[in-house]
Amino acid sequence: MPQDKPKAVVLLSGGLDSTTVLAIAQRDGFDTYALSFSYGQTHELELDAAKKVAESFGVREHRIFKLDLGSFLGSALVGDGEIPKHDSFEELDADLKDKIPSTYVPARNTVFLSIALAWAEVISAKAIFIGVNALDYSGYPDCRPEYIKAYEKMANLATKAGVNESERLVIHAPLIDMTKAEIIRSGISLGVDYSITHSCYDPTPEQKACGRCDSCLLRLRGFEEAGLVDPASL
Amino acid sequence: MPQDKPKAVVLLSGGLDSTTVLAIAQRDGFDTYALSFSYGQTHELELDAAKKVAESFGVREHRIFKLDLGSFLGSALVGDGEIPKHDSFEELDADLKDKIPSTYVPARNTVFLSIALAWAEVISAKAIFIGVNALDYSGYPDCRPEYIKAYEKMANLATKAGVNESERLVIHAPLIDMTKAEIIRSGISLGVDYSITHSCYDPTPEQKACGRCDSCLLRLRGFEEAGLVDPASL
Repeated sequence: MPQDKPKAVVLLSGGLDSTTVLAIAQRDGFDTYALSFSYGQTHELELDAAKKVAESFGVREHRIFKLDLGSFLGSALVGDGEIPKHDSFEELDADLKDKIPSTYVPARNTVFLSIALAWAEVISAKAIFIGVNALDYSGYPDCRPEYIKAYEKMANLATKAGVNESERLVIHAPLIDMTKAEIIRSGISLGVDYSITHSCYDPTPEQKACGRCDSCLLRLRGFEEAGLVDPASL
Repeated sequence: MPQDKPKAVVLLSGGLDSTTVLAIAQRDGFDTYALSFSYGQTHELELDAAKKVAESFGVREHRIFKLDLGSFLGSALVGDGEIPKHDSFEELDADLKDKIPSTYVPARNTVFLSIALAWAEVISAKAIFIGVNALDYSGYPDCRPEYIKAYEKMANLATKAGVNESERLVIHAPLIDMTKAEIIRSGISLGVDYSITHSCYDPTPEQKACGRCDSCLLRLRGFEEAGLVDPASL
């Protein structure tokens, strides 16, 4: 009886990581509510991918929440500055080392988790899934395990859950310690079709992945290390 | 030289509490950036009040961020259910005791603080001011001191501040332990003109305060206890 499953809000960008997370949440027995954001990304391919993914997984509901972050957030991802490109994995690693990349969107995961938290409270979901990843994390501060723990603690004080222990909310970040190759192997074992996902920060006019941005390179290397070929169109 | 002052983002609803907080932030030497939200409130009087307040205080900048919370958040404040009314302070107290009121908006302060956090990071503000109040707090879980502390801890792990200790961010909640009467006295001593503020959850068609919702009654009692008359039009 599907209505007896516990509910989970799953943050879904339509990329490789969040799609794998959705597969994991379903494997773990959750009734999934997917949440995507339209926040002034320079292209809408991500949202198209998110819609395809949500549909192929048969989620209970898929909401796209519009956030006007572009109006004051500086990031290359919302059209403010160039997307960094690299010609090799070595160049990528050298560039990512010890620095926060220009594609960082200020407080993005905090804003996304907060909207997810509001929705979770409305639908009485006690789980939120997010595809952050600390190993291949690309230098974003809000992808670290200590951040997720601190968010969960705050969330339980923020809401009705904080008043009633049986309502305790858990933030699930199942990818947090996995390499990209492990994430891909895990997704493949769960039947994920990565050809419908989208990860590129700067797709070509023909809507193909650029193959040279941080996101493309981390993904390509993951497939290479998993001994597979990335089905994303390049 | 005003440009040397530290910057602060101040959450400003246009009500009594947040207006007092703005006065306190300016007294404490901050260059103030006011942030209001348009989130499907059933009336726009709040935003009009916020604009008047921001202007009268000469804030550096006032942003109104549009949030489509109404689409999935259940609360009497966004038109979902009746606003509770009471005919006396005793009736108010009896109704608020040990229960979260129907005017509670799920995770509202968490969502608001998260957008403030994003803006603070963009403008390099290391302070966010919020007018939460634990004594007269009307039963909202996200108005408690332990919530504010947990939010601050999370925020410092979420952003670039988490990477660089000198960038540490502080969430200021100067009203947290004050009674409504103390808040009003403090505001009056700082020259706040409460006649331009707006607190009512359910104003009349003539745009006057109803005088019977939780917010009106808490405010009226505050003025009474401070030995003053509420200048809000009733």
